[in-house]
Amino acid sequence: MAEIDDKIIDDKDAERHRAKMAKRKAVQDAEVAGKTIEKGLLIVNTGPGKGKTTAAFGLALRMLGYGKRVGVVQFIKGKWHTGEKDAFAAFGDRVIWHTMGEGFTWESQDLKRDIAAAEAAWAKALELMADPSISLVVLDELNIALRYDYLDLEKVVAALKTRREGLHVIVTGRNAKPLLVEAADLVTEMGLTKHHFAAGVKAQQGIEF
Amino acid sequence: MAEIDDKIIDDKDAERHRAKMAKRKAVQDAEVAGKTIEKGLLIVNTGPGKGKTTAAFGLALRMLGYGKRVGVVQFIKGKWHTGEKDAFAAFGDRVIWHTMGEGFTWESQDLKRDIAAAEAAWAKALELMADPSISLVVLDELNIALRYDYLDLEKVVAALKTRREGLHVIVTGRNAKPLLVEAADLVTEMGLTKHHFAAGVKAQQGIEF
Repeated sequence: MAEIDDKIIDDKDAERHRAKMAKRKAVQDAEVAGKTIEKGLLIVNTGPGKGKTTAAFGLALRMLGYGKRVGVVQFIKGKWHTGEKDAFAAFGDRVIWHTMGEGFTWESQDLKRDIAAAEAAWAKALELMADPSISLVVLDELNIALRYDYLDLEKVVAALKTRREGLHVIVTGRNAKPLLVEAADLVTEMGLTKHHFAAGVKAQQGIEF
Repeated sequence: MAEIDDKIIDDKDAERHRAKMAKRKAVQDAEVAGKTIEKGLLIVNTGPGKGKTTAAFGLALRMLGYGKRVGVVQFIKGKWHTGEKDAFAAFGDRVIWHTMGEGFTWESQDLKRDIAAAEAAWAKALELMADPSISLVVLDELNIALRYDYLDLEKVVAALKTRREGLHVIVTGRNAKPLLVEAADLVTEMGLTKHHFAAGVKAQQGIEF
């Protein structure tokens, strides 16, 4: 670290920095002061990039850190094993987990079965959303079920909009429907700038599943 | 759910779906078969949207689910309390956590102190990256330290590129430097489609911290 330690910061630089940051702090403080609303958020993580589901689970973890309870419904993921499910077991009954999918649509190849699975998953979602002990519900890959019309979009969005006060819900999956985006408080589009799959790297334990 | 149950799927629809998905599966299977490389990834989560840090922690959780060890260095976040830190305590010594920041740059207003904090954090990062028991290192908000030139970019990128084989590293923070993006295997740009702060909602427990 010697080279960095030797970087010379003269008093003028330091003062310029302080003045700039003091100004920035004033702006920042005013912004924070202007935000006063507390509410349960409807969050959507969409886009082609990585991080939609992992960010939802990162938020679940944050919530668990405050002693809260979290519910998860996986709409598409089915049989295969994932690390996150095992990890959440560390929180005992503070995480309620339903893996309801039949796998990717191209694995199942059975439209009726996919629709039935989506309906069963949605019934679990409604159950979790109605449970007052739960602070956050993750609806993983619900966007996929909506995209393929496995569920009625208007009915799903209406239920999400009329969720009980204070409840946070995160919906993940590519191609979020505009009606859902419109209803949401927070929408993040994960953009794929660069992906290792394109370089021939395969799905790895702890990274993709 | 009655309305959805009543949706009529005739045999032709079902067969069309099956054929389409069978074709899709063949493409998908060929793609998966073409990916054979296993490697420790350099991952960058950047962009103005939410989910950069939470996705990194979601990945850490996934890794923990396989019994692996994870290291975290927070370059900017300092004094304030976060839920994720408490939650990770559930995994005992499988998570090594260093909060090394002095808070936001506009809070510290002291360039020398910010640089010293970044250097100390980077020293911890090197330590974690050298520890063969660790599978994933999260360098939270390292991009911010690089953006403000608290650390030497070329030196940091060189160290990341020459990390030991098999080690996954995730760097988070807005405005990732092009040199880092170039070196990375996986880069996701979290785009801000819609944010509740703009609607006057304040930072809430379990969501922002």
